[in-house]
Amino acid sequence: MSAEEENRLARVALTWLAEPGTRAVHRLVERHGPVATLDLLLDGGSPDGWLHTTVAARSAAGDARAVAAEALQRADRLGARLVTPDDEEWPSPVADLATLRLPDVSRRVDAETAPPLCFWVRGGWPLGEALDRSVAVVGARAATGYGQHVATELGYGLAERDWTVVSGGAFGIDAAAHRGALTAGGLTVAVLACGLDRPYPIGNTALFDRIAETGLLVSEWPPGAEPLRPRFLIRNRVIAVGTRGTVVVEASARSGATQTARRAIYGNRVAMVVPGPVTSAMSVGAHEFLREFPDKARLVTGVAHVLEEVGRIGADLAPLARGPQRPSDALDDDARSLLEALPRRGAMGVDRLSVRAGVGVRTALRKLSLLEELSMVVRRDDGYALAPPPAASTRAAAQTPALPGT
Amino acid sequence: MSAEEENRLARVALTWLAEPGTRAVHRLVERHGPVATLDLLLDGGSPDGWLHTTVAARSAAGDARAVAAEALQRADRLGARLVTPDDEEWPSPVADLATLRLPDVSRRVDAETAPPLCFWVRGGWPLGEALDRSVAVVGARAATGYGQHVATELGYGLAERDWTVVSGGAFGIDAAAHRGALTAGGLTVAVLACGLDRPYPIGNTALFDRIAETGLLVSEWPPGAEPLRPRFLIRNRVIAVGTRGTVVVEASARSGATQTARRAIYGNRVAMVVPGPVTSAMSVGAHEFLREFPDKARLVTGVAHVLEEVGRIGADLAPLARGPQRPSDALDDDARSLLEALPRRGAMGVDRLSVRAGVGVRTALRKLSLLEELSMVVRRDDGYALAPPPAASTRAAAQTPALPGT
Repeated sequence: MSAEEENRLARVALTWLAEPGTRAVHRLVERHGPVATLDLLLDGGSPDGWLHTTVAARSAAGDARAVAAEALQRADRLGARLVTPDDEEWPSPVADLATLRLPDVSRRVDAETAPPLCFWVRGGWPLGEALDRSVAVVGARAATGYGQHVATELGYGLAERDWTVVSGGAFGIDAAAHRGALTAGGLTVAVLACGLDRPYPIGNTALFDRIAETGLLVSEWPPGAEPLRPRFLIRNRVIAVGTRGTVVVEASARSGATQTARRAIYGNRVAMVVPGPVTSAMSVGAHEFLREFPDKARLVTGVAHVLEEVGRIGADLAPLARGPQRPSDALDDDARSLLEALPRRGAMGVDRLSVRAGVGVRTALRKLSLLEELSMVVRRDDGYALAPPPAASTRAAAQTPALPGT
Repeated sequence: MSAEEENRLARVALTWLAEPGTRAVHRLVERHGPVATLDLLLDGGSPDGWLHTTVAARSAAGDARAVAAEALQRADRLGARLVTPDDEEWPSPVADLATLRLPDVSRRVDAETAPPLCFWVRGGWPLGEALDRSVAVVGARAATGYGQHVATELGYGLAERDWTVVSGGAFGIDAAAHRGALTAGGLTVAVLACGLDRPYPIGNTALFDRIAETGLLVSEWPPGAEPLRPRFLIRNRVIAVGTRGTVVVEASARSGATQTARRAIYGNRVAMVVPGPVTSAMSVGAHEFLREFPDKARLVTGVAHVLEEVGRIGADLAPLARGPQRPSDALDDDARSLLEALPRRGAMGVDRLSVRAGVGVRTALRKLSLLEELSMVVRRDDGYALAPPPAASTRAAAQTPALPGT
């Protein structure tokens, strides 16, 4: 067996021994590679007690490598393939999960948000390409007619504009979003929380087959894996960070959909929420989320707003991708808008600026003085002006005058 | 005639000569008093051309003082009274209109937002007392069943908790809010844009009479004044700033209701918005407003949220009332929450802090460094701590540890 085959087998074995997203396992793989990590764990060398227990329990049930080999054979029969970070089609954005940390972690599933070790994929498209221009549309299973209508419209509108629609496989909003995308003849991706050979819920089997024909069925769990409850939360981190942004359409209080949106926010993606009637229990969670993150979550009423946001986030993410924190990373939308409203040359008074930026004068004054402190803006007699960017970066600055130094 | 009577007569004459809210007139009255201002204007001494034209046109139509005396007699017959800043019952918060400036002023009515010179009042309650704990509920005339339901519930819930409901007199949301308050046996105030002797729309006459029995009918315009279109916008500034906050329930694109909410924001009051179905034209303006002011407008779904906001704003306004700007005035909710989450004594790590404050870790770090710059917070090895307040203000600081110096 080639070294590459051993690595792939080890990654599969590891997701069987410990749930995807386990940080301790990810750290070990980063340091020692999958094969050495597998041997270490199988020899009882787990760094933490909980992992040790899980591994012991699972390996008592069978030989990890044998189980992995069997899973790979089942995948073949299923027409599914294994995708690992060594493959061309690996979706690089999921690497950002390495830095995703949720506040107020009460449950282990909220702490174990490490990047996937591998994906099982059914469908023709290369996974990374399919997720490159993608938006997640998620929401309640017990969706109302209103919610299903909105989700279908969003799925259709995004697909029509060549954006990939990503969702889970649940009834209600998930299914409506997929159907909308399929109707538009677009690309849609269902990320499951169980083996691809046993898609859940059974009632959506026909839908899953249609998705696999033109889009992708994806899972971190090997064939045969059951849709256990915590796995949906573990799965949600991939939907949140594997896409440019997540739109929540209908969510009851404490719903899984807002959990996905929460992971989008802390994973530095855009979280978008479609409001609904305040008299509808299916919009309670959506409205709570907008109230909880007034400066992070975006209210959207249709595909135009969604495209506005995910278009923007491309730029927002760039500095992170380029590495070290910049002052500009800390800027909120108002500050950004003001920077963008500033004339390329010369200064502008705060009144005109606030109008141009669509920001209240009070807010404008507050943000401008913050920008002054960050020396991104200079105050002059005739108003505010952009701080001259370092000569070196003139070309970059021309693209994003907002961020001197980029 | 006593000097006081002459002053009152002059104020009435001035609102007849120039529309309420005219800044030039307000400035003159502040400087020279109503009588001298009236004489000045009647002698053609208007400081600006537009005012000169208006005054000339109006005074050509009749003797200003005679018209005013006639108006006062009509008010008597109507059981209405004139209220001026010299009266006990004058609502002092409307003085804040002196500093209200709207950005992007294209129409004169958006620029002329000076405080009222006088109010005409019909009803038993002292005006100032009635407006002391008040919330405005405004919205579309062509309201849907959904909107009317929500507005009625809000009116009822606010009245039940001894808050005065304030609105215009229009069909739809306005009327629903008044009816809700009346049903709860509460206090409701209708602010009209015409003379109290000709309430508009006629279809609400019965409603206006019920309001006058237990609440108040209020107008800046003398009896006989017609409900001209611009007067509704002029009136809106009083609804916005005469109350603690404004709730928008349903608003179509570019509606008058969002104009009121805009005045609330720039008048340093809380603007609240009830979302609705994105498929409803009657919620388009509401959602646009939430998107335009993500950090200023608050999404509310019921009376509990509204009370939360107006409760807060009481405190927010306090520093302004006490005079000079403080750094803390510039803080947004996240920064405030973090300050309030900080322990009275000792420091706390950012993770626990962000959890306690219900603020994302990224946001928390950003806001805490801002608070550090404002020297309201100190960073220590064991986390962040409140900056020690000036010895002088220990007692005040005990009430609001968030704001050293208050």
